[in-house]
Parts: sequence; structure tokens; C-alpha cells
Amino acid sequence: MLIVMHQQASSEQVDAVLRQIRDFGLEPHPIPGKTRTAIGITGNVSAIDPTHFEGLEGVKECIRVTKPYKLASREMKVDDTYVDVADATIGKNAFTVIAGPCSVENETMILRTAEFLRGLGVRLLRGGAYKPRTSPYAFQGLGADGLELLAKARERTGIGIVTEIMDASQLAEIAPIADMLQIGARNMQNFTLLKAVSRSDRPVLLKRGISATLEEWLMAAEYILSGGNARVAMCERGVRTFADHSRNTLDLSVIPPLQALSHLPIVVDPSHGTGHRAYVGAMAKAALAAGAHGLMIEVHPDPARALSDGAQSLDFGEFQKLWGELRTLADALGRPIA
Amino acid sequence: MLIVMHQQASSEQVDAVLRQIRDFGLEPHPIPGKTRTAIGITGNVSAIDPTHFEGLEGVKECIRVTKPYKLASREMKVDDTYVDVADATIGKNAFTVIAGPCSVENETMILRTAEFLRGLGVRLLRGGAYKPRTSPYAFQGLGADGLELLAKARERTGIGIVTEIMDASQLAEIAPIADMLQIGARNMQNFTLLKAVSRSDRPVLLKRGISATLEEWLMAAEYILSGGNARVAMCERGVRTFADHSRNTLDLSVIPPLQALSHLPIVVDPSHGTGHRAYVGAMAKAALAAGAHGLMIEVHPDPARALSDGAQSLDFGEFQKLWGELRTLADALGRPIA
Amino acid sequence: MLIVMHQQASSEQVDAVLRQIRDFGLEPHPIPGKTRTAIGITGNVSAIDPTHFEGLEGVKECIRVTKPYKLASREMKVDDTYVDVADATIGKNAFTVIAGPCSVENETMILRTAEFLRGLGVRLLRGGAYKPRTSPYAFQGLGADGLELLAKARERTGIGIVTEIMDASQLAEIAPIADMLQIGARNMQNFTLLKAVSRSDRPVLLKRGISATLEEWLMAAEYILSGGNARVAMCERGVRTFADHSRNTLDLSVIPPLQALSHLPIVVDPSHGTGHRAYVGAMAKAALAAGAHGLMIEVHPDPARALSDGAQSLDFGEFQKLWGELRTLADALGRPIA
Amino acid sequence: MLIVMHQQASSEQVDAVLRQIRDFGLEPHPIPGKTRTAIGITGNVSAIDPTHFEGLEGVKECIRVTKPYKLASREMKVDDTYVDVADATIGKNAFTVIAGPCSVENETMILRTAEFLRGLGVRLLRGGAYKPRTSPYAFQGLGADGLELLAKARERTGIGIVTEIMDASQLAEIAPIADMLQIGARNMQNFTLLKAVSRSDRPVLLKRGISATLEEWLMAAEYILSGGNARVAMCERGVRTFADHSRNTLDLSVIPPLQALSHLPIVVDPSHGTGHRAYVGAMAKAALAAGAHGLMIEVHPDPARALSDGAQSLDFGEFQKLWGELRTLADALGRPIA
Repeated sequence: MLIVMHQQASSEQVDAVLRQIRDFGLEPHPIPGKTRTAIGITGNVSAIDPTHFEGLEGVKECIRVTKPYKLASREMKVDDTYVDVADATIGKNAFTVIAGPCSVENETMILRTAEFLRGLGVRLLRGGAYKPRTSPYAFQGLGADGLELLAKARERTGIGIVTEIMDASQLAEIAPIADMLQIGARNMQNFTLLKAVSRSDRPVLLKRGISATLEEWLMAAEYILSGGNARVAMCERGVRTFADHSRNTLDLSVIPPLQALSHLPIVVDPSHGTGHRAYVGAMAKAALAAGAHGLMIEVHPDPARALSDGAQSLDFGEFQKLWGELRTLADALGRPIA
Repeated sequence: MLIVMHQQASSEQVDAVLRQIRDFGLEPHPIPGKTRTAIGITGNVSAIDPTHFEGLEGVKECIRVTKPYKLASREMKVDDTYVDVADATIGKNAFTVIAGPCSVENETMILRTAEFLRGLGVRLLRGGAYKPRTSPYAFQGLGADGLELLAKARERTGIGIVTEIMDASQLAEIAPIADMLQIGARNMQNFTLLKAVSRSDRPVLLKRGISATLEEWLMAAEYILSGGNARVAMCERGVRTFADHSRNTLDLSVIPPLQALSHLPIVVDPSHGTGHRAYVGAMAKAALAAGAHGLMIEVHPDPARALSDGAQSLDFGEFQKLWGELRTLADALGRPIA
Repeated sequence: MLIVMHQQASSEQVDAVLRQIRDFGLEPHPIPGKTRTAIGITGNVSAIDPTHFEGLEGVKECIRVTKPYKLASREMKVDDTYVDVADATIGKNAFTVIAGPCSVENETMILRTAEFLRGLGVRLLRGGAYKPRTSPYAFQGLGADGLELLAKARERTGIGIVTEIMDASQLAEIAPIADMLQIGARNMQNFTLLKAVSRSDRPVLLKRGISATLEEWLMAAEYILSGGNARVAMCERGVRTFADHSRNTLDLSVIPPLQALSHLPIVVDPSHGTGHRAYVGAMAKAALAAGAHGLMIEVHPDPARALSDGAQSLDFGEFQKLWGELRTLADALGRPIA
Repeated sequence: MLIVMHQQASSEQVDAVLRQIRDFGLEPHPIPGKTRTAIGITGNVSAIDPTHFEGLEGVKECIRVTKPYKLASREMKVDDTYVDVADATIGKNAFTVIAGPCSVENETMILRTAEFLRGLGVRLLRGGAYKPRTSPYAFQGLGADGLELLAKARERTGIGIVTEIMDASQLAEIAPIADMLQIGARNMQNFTLLKAVSRSDRPVLLKRGISATLEEWLMAAEYILSGGNARVAMCERGVRTFADHSRNTLDLSVIPPLQALSHLPIVVDPSHGTGHRAYVGAMAKAALAAGAHGLMIEVHPDPARALSDGAQSLDFGEFQKLWGELRTLADALGRPIA
């Protein structure tokens, strides 16, 4: 941590800051400059809130140098993390596609979709039983019935299940059905939920909050890791900006810094990222080329009649075409779809 | 709702859209233009997801005209809503100040603060027992012990209690102590929590999510209202933008449109909005002048030693000075602090 | 400046950085920590681009401590700057209102407006002769004819003229008519234009770019100050965010930090900031209460027929009402409208 | 255009709006709904500012349906535009790489770079002679001397020159040297400059403003097209958001909608987009996979000693490696680098 004093700070003020640093059991390193003094701090700084020092007289600014996450950081664990989910592995030198409808609507559609996808070679099915919806009047998912249908789809096809958990109280119900628990963007900082899944033995797909910084996103992962669950994959699904040409702004540029700072794998959701079926393919290929470890894509047998997210869902023909393009690209990049 | 067709859309495509509109039980009104056709839709449009139509061939765009919230809207209820909390009323022709520490740290500090504030005439005390923190390693609040101390502060001074609920499972524990339940920015779209408080008899202070649009914020209020709890006050606490001169960008400009679109009262939190003690006073006065119904301000007996939010907390002297300035201003504006 | 080395950085890499720092004529101060080394740098750091160091091996991050602006900073000039414009002074313990139409449309409207405003006591008239318009097909202003009408308005009423300069080549034509040159948001980083007005003897109203940080905005002022023109007033007019409840997000929260960091006065434009006539008054009063030194407000004799910005312009009755409210508020705050 | 009336709007207010629409020579189409009236407008709406109607009594909102750009739109010109620059063609079924240093620093470095790039097969050299810099104290480019060196590089190697024009007054000086004029992000709405290059016979590379919507960006192109210069290529270079993991947020998601709405080709600049050398390669490949027509990449013989943008410049070895990867990927995608 680095404390920058005001130009006009008196030596008494500097001394008071030095004392407070030592009170915290840390070591101050004053750097007297031509116009002002700065103070480097070493020791176990991570527990200290930098705003403590900003409250002191004569202090202009307090700059955190060390990242606040530990278990999620590449410095703590140099090697890439692989997350096994059903018969897929997210993060190995391969490329994993999770596909399926926004929500489970009925038995026919989820079974048809699971069979279609499994037939192509897709290993993981997405599908929501509990749906977070902006409006209280919108379809909220089939709930327990939806979970049952997902279990049936797995039984019938062998495909792995990725489904969303919205609240800590749902864990006991969802965990037996889910091969992977999805935490949605709106819940990225639902700390009660993060703590609950941290004690589960299910791998977690952690979506980035709609305006989360990379640091906040990794701190959310840190909640899960520090609770004892090391099987976390990150999912970029678009952030909110001023731009209005798509539903969200899919932030592929987060992939390289995430991989530099953390060992956790990253999956990209171009369906929510763009909100438009016609743009999904281009962004899916871009994500693969940018180094993502996988994709999460919305597929529906009849998007025009979908109960949610129809405009961003691919139909079977569109998905099959994209699947072929991704395979070609993945082979050229030496990271085969698995 | 208005559907805009592509210039190249065929008359067959237009007909297919008209059919689908009628299938939903709605009435289409085609508007043939020089270069393209638009189709107005009337009927009970609110349950329809506009993206349904965007999936159809020949459709360029689908524009929602009617707002999706109802109970929260000024069109549904013309008169201002007043929310009674302990002996205060938020939203009347008065100005309500909620003040207190970020979190309850120990008995001495919370009692001293309650006594100091009550002595000035403040009617509502804020103080967190359960704290949402970005880092799993940061102080997470005193929990049940903190609630007990808040109850003691009320008993001792008569001040009303505003405290945060982080998860639906905490309702039974918190409701007896809280005169008002606070929902934090990170939980604005924790729909399980919104539904839980909608069935409570406690008034709710609903903070705006860090990147929530006004519509999304009102939709979150709609969850509470539609569940049966009409006592909701909104709280602007800063949004996330590119700007780095303060912790968040306090969006006072949301006050007039919120008041135009909704009957719910609005409170402003300049402490989180700015993140810097030195800027709190200016923004507090600006909020009052802009027409807010109240303020939520962090006050601590010794901010330099606060366990959280020290840099943005006022000490007693600073608060007392601001309280005087607010009274003068409120009198000049004809909305006395009550 | 502070350089943070990677945890894995070798001592050779640290030495290479120390050498390069000395090569620039600066002094390095290594701070060896438990897990990594940081290096403070003192000396004349302002000319050094921090990215230089980020290119070196073993360097993780380079943090600038000193602000890059000098003449605009409070540290260089402690006392507030007052900018005299015609018979007004922006920045003294008073409150200055600049009012008038978006653009000069014809002789009648500009003279009527000038007379109305001067009659109330307004000292400065805004009005565009050259208009930056997003569309090449929109009204681009009357140009030279517009300037002539502004001169006539001044001659007739004695009111001072504030008008926009869009390009360095217009300086010779505009300077004789303008008591104050306005630089629009889109031109905040038109460096050729900034250099041109820096050599003029006219005061400058520098609007904040639509996504400019406070630092970039002050750096734009620094261009003008460093070229020899010390008469700069800053103008906040709303920034671009995700929020869609108003045309821009008026950032009143920039006022206190700007005043802390700089001695330059600040004016607020609630007309562009909100884009809606109905919201202008509330934001105008909030700006005054937040400590702004003045306002720039769009007023038009017949907004419904304005050639530009009609929706955000007040008519005479609305302005007169607001003028009265501002006077009351300004008196209560001890900063009379002058 | 669609006008939405308030629920409480009287029939007199509706009639007044209908009259005003007819006064503008347009045709109104009232759509009476259950709770409110909407009015579709047909005719030549493009010249009308929607805010006109928002000023009228009883009007709630005015929604523009038709896009305001014409010449830049895909509806006006269905076929893709190709822009010939020196011996390259931007936009054909090929992939064009523009590479070179941020600024021309001296003869040796620019000639070495040109020779290196031309040797690999690169057809276009970037290099700034006039540099827009945030700080007045930073290196501002070599100016006329820089242009001369660029001319020498072209003469020596045959490589085409892309260089920035900062002000309309520089056109006569720069056009003879530049095979393509670059307009920087800060000047995207410098309308005097846009009009100047619209009358030039040089192709233009138009960078997206740091917070420009797709519509504003295309409107800036419309200025150039409507002035008579049809040879415009768009350049995405990152936008400003809350995210702090990279210098800007490179918005690859703008590629598909830009290509859907416009016939103009699009180039991506991953150097400014990321600001970090280590992230350039991943984003370059992603841009290619997303369908961009080309790249602009900063390359410098010795980035650690570059006078500007060192941290985001590739050295020769890094560029050569990326060039190879791009060729493999481009071949797999069937769009060879040309």
C-alpha cells in the first residue's frame, strides 16, 4: 500500500500516519520527495481497508498495490485450473460448449434439445428451472418441475446439466440435479449464496455482474474458493455501458487479463452478451480466437415461440452451422472442441 | 408496442407478424410508410416480451411504449406515497434524515451515536448488523449481536432503526428489530429477497443497484408492491460510470424523472455516493435542493478508527454543522426537516 | 511515481529498472516487501510517461502519484480564480447565470430574449452562431449573420455575449463579438482549438467532454492556461453513462473534487445535462446548493418552435419563475445572484 | 417517428399534435389504445428533430424509428464498400493489416520499421507526425519533419502511408503524403475537420469516439460521405466504460451490427483497445474471427524507448509471431491476409 501526503502536510501529520501504520503491525517506508512525502507500507496489508488512512489529516490518497484476492490469483497458483463437469473438462487444452434453452418450458422441448445437442457431441446442457426476471409479471420458470425434466434429459441422453441457483435456500433441491451450479450476473455479489455454494461439492459457473470490475468478479470467486470449493469457472456475459447496439457489451477484452491474473478458466456467453441471434456466431468465434475455454449458447427448437430470450436463441439449424464453424476454427487453433 | 419492419420486408412477412399479434390476443395497427411499414399494437401488451417479435422474419426492431411497471407508476397512483417509519414520515412535505454508522461495532459506539443524533432531533438511525462486503476477508458485521445492540439503542433513545437485510432467510430475525428494512444495492435484483420483504409488514428502503436503470429500479419496487407491501422508499446511492473522481457517481438527476414517473418517495445517500467525507455536505445540500425527500448519511464517533467506510463517515462535529446548514436550506425551500 | 514489480521478478530485473530510472535523471527508492518489491520515484516525474516502465521486464504496474496538471491545480495556486466577463464575475462569492437560446435563429427572437433577460438582471447571454450538430442534415447555425445579431443584442441591451467557437480558424471572426468563448463538449480535446484560444485575450468557458475524467478536463484547461490565457471557467454539462432517464447524466458530484483540486470556477448547464425542460429547475437549484459558481440555461421565446434543443429550453415564464427561486435559495446560502 | 401521448392527455392536446405534424408537411396516423393514444408519423421525417414534439403539451415521449444516416446505411447501398489504399483494398474478402509506430520519432526507426513490415508483406504503414496528446507537456510529434520521413519510407519501400490529420488546416500539408487520412477518436465529431476531408480525394480511416454510439459514429461517416468522399473505413479502438482491466474496452461486439446497418468496412485497433502489449495478440485474432476487415497494430523497433505508447507496442519479434498466427487463422476462415 502507498500513502500519498498532501504537499502542505506538516511533519506532525506525517508522524501521526507513521504511528498509525505501526499500530496496525505494519512497516512504513517514507519516501520524501521534492514537493510531498509518500509512504510505502509493507507487511500483511490485505486485511487493512485503505480508506482508514484516507481519513487521517494530511493524507491525500491511499493506493492499494497488492490485489485483495489470493486463492483466485495466479501468484498463489501458477498452473491453470481444470474444472471437471460430467464428462467434460473446462479449462484443459480444449474448448467446451454448453448449450440449451434459456428456460425449461416443457418435456418435449427439453428432451428434443438434449437429444439434438448430444447427437452433435455437445457434453453440457444449459436450462433454467428457476429464472431471475426483471418483471414480477414475467414467466419465472417451472421450478421443481423444471429440475425433474432436466434430470430426465440427463438420464435419457447422458448430457451434463448446468442450471441456475438463485438463492441459498435452493441448494439442497438443485445440487442433486445439477452437474454444475450457475450463479447469474445479478447474484454475483449475493454473498449468502456464494457462501452456500462454497460448501457444496458441485462445480460453479460464476457469471460476471453487469458492471463488475475484474477485481470484484475475482473477489466473488474468492468467496467460493475460500469456503472450500475450488471448482469455479468464470463466465463473461456482457457488461453494461453507454452502447446501445446490443443488449449488453460483450467484454472479450477481459479474457487476457483474467488469464494473466488468475488460474481459473473462462467461458463466454455470446447470447446474453449480444441479445441478437444474428450476432451470436461472430462473437462465439471471436471468443474462441481470444482464448476463452468455452462457450455458453442459447439454443431453442423454436425461438419464435420461446417463453424467454427468444430473440437471442439459435434454432437447431443455426446452431449446427455454428458448431461446424467452431470445429474448423478450434482445429486451426490447436484447441479441439471436446 | 411498435414493430418496425425492414425496408425490404415482403407483404407475406408483414402478414405473418399481423397474424402472430392477433394470436397473442392483441390488436395490430399497420402504418404503411414511404419506405417501410410499422405496426402499432394495442391491448394488454405488458405480459409480452418484445423480443418475441424481433425473432420474426422481416422485423427490424420492436419498441416498447408502455412502461412495464404498474403499481409503482404515477399513472396508477397519482398522489405521492408517504412511508411512516417509527415517528418519521418519509415523503411528506418534510425532509427526513437517516444517520448513523456503516456498521454496529460495539455497544458504546452505537449508543453514543444514537444519543447524539436523537439529541439533535434525528428520528432514524442507520447501522448494519449484517454487512455485504466485497472481500470474504473483511469485517462482515456483528450479526445477531449487532441487532441486539440496535434494539438497545432504540429502547434507550426512542430513535427508529433502519438496518440491512441481506438474505430472505434473515427476515424472521431482523424484522422485529428493524423499523425499516434496507435492501442494499447489490441485492436490488435478489428476487427471492424482494419477494420475502413483499410479504413483511415492515417498510422497505430499496437502494438502487450500481448500474440499474430507473426502469429496473422501479421494477424491483414493483416486486415488493405486487407482493403486498406498499411501504417502499427508494434510495439513490451513486451509480458506476467511467468517472474516477469519487467512489460512485451520485446521480441526483434521477430525482425529477423518478418523481414524474412514480409516486414513491426518494432518499439520497451522499456518503456512498461520494465515498469522501469532504464531499458529503455539498451533495447532501444538493439532494435537498433537487427535491429529494430525505438523506441517509454515515456518522461515526471516530471515523479514523471505523471498521468500515471510515473515509466517508462524518464525525459528530461535522454532522452537527451539516445539520444546521440543512435546516437553514430546508426552511428556505419550505420543506422543514422533521 | 511508484513502480510495482511482479512477485517473480528477479533482482536483475529490479536492477534494470533502477538503472532506467536513473537514466531519466530521477531518483529511485526501492521498498522491498515480503512478497514483492516496489520502487518509489522522486524528481521531475511529470514529463515521464508511466507506460515507459510498464514495458520493462518484471514490472507489474506503474502508478502515477502526482497529478499531471500544474497551472490548473490548487497546489500551484491556492486562491480561487475569478473570471471577469462583461460586467459579470464568475467565481467570486456570487452566482452568475448565463441564459439564452441554443442558437441564434433570427433578429426578433434574439433581441426579445436579450431584452427579457437583461430586464430581469441577467448579465450574460448565450447563443450559438456556429452549431456542432450530430447530423450533417441538421440546422448548422446562422454563422456570420448570427454573430452580427449577437453584437446587435449586446449593443441594444448591454448584455455580455457567450458564444461557441468550433474551430481555430473562426477565432478572428468570433473574438471581437464574444465576451466569452465557449468550447463545446465535443471539442474539449480539439488541441488545435485549445492552443488557439490560449493565445486569445478572451475568457473561455470550457465544457467537459461527454466522457472526460476530471483529470482530462483539467488537462484541457492546462492547454489554455499554459498557452497564456488564465481566464478559464469550467462547465459541467452531463456525461454519458448507461442511464437513460435523461439525455445525459448531469454530474454534480464533480463540483466538490474539482474545487478541491483546482482554483478554476465551475458553471453547470442543466439544460444539456437533463435534456428535459421539466427537470432543469430542480438541477439548477441543486447545482447552486452544491457550490457551483453559476449556471448556463437555455431560454427561448417559443421552445415548441425552436430550431434546436426545444425540448430542453425554458420559455420566459418558466425562466422567470426559476430566477425567483434561485434568488431565494442564493440568498439563504449567502451567495447572492449577481 | 412515433409520438406517445400521456394517459391523461386531452383530445384537444392530441388534436394540437396532429395539427403540428401536418404543419411540418407530414402525415399523422393516430393509434388509439386502451389507456393512451400513440401517433405514427410518415413522410420525410429525417429533417425533424424529435424533441420538437416532446415540447408539446400532453406528449410523453417521441420515438425515432428511421435511422438518421442515409449514405452510410446498408438500406441505401446493399453491397459492401471496398476502400482502395495504395496497393491494399480494405473490405474485400481479404484481411488488411496496418502496422507501425504510434509516432514517427526519427529517420532510422521509421525506415527500419517500414522495411521490416514490407518484408513480411504488410501493405500499409501507420505513423503519426501530428499527435493529439492529453498533456500539453507531452511529445506532440515531429510535424512537417515527420511527414517527410513518412514520404521517404514510402519511396524506399513502396508501403502505403496512413497518418493522422488533427485539424482542417493541415489538409493541404498532409494529403500529398498520406495514402489514407486517419481521424482520431477525439476528433470524431470535429465537424470542421470532417467537412474538410469530405472534399479531399484521400480515403479516410475514421476512428470511433471514446464514447460514441454506433449511430453517432455512422453520422460522423455521413458527414464525409455527404460531402462527396465515399472512401471511408471505420476503426474501432476501444470505448470508455467502468472497466479498469485495460486502457479502454475494445468493443468487438460492434462489428456485426455495424456490418448489418452499414456497407462500410471496419478495422480494429487492438493496441489502443487494450493498452497492453501482452493482450494485443488475443484481441487481434478475436477481431479477425469476429469478421473485421483489418487491423491497425502498433509496432516499434524498441518499445521500451518509444516516445509514446511504448507499453502497447509490439516489437518486431512479437509482431512477426502474431503475423504468422493471423495468417493461419485467416486461411482457416477463408479470408487470406492480403
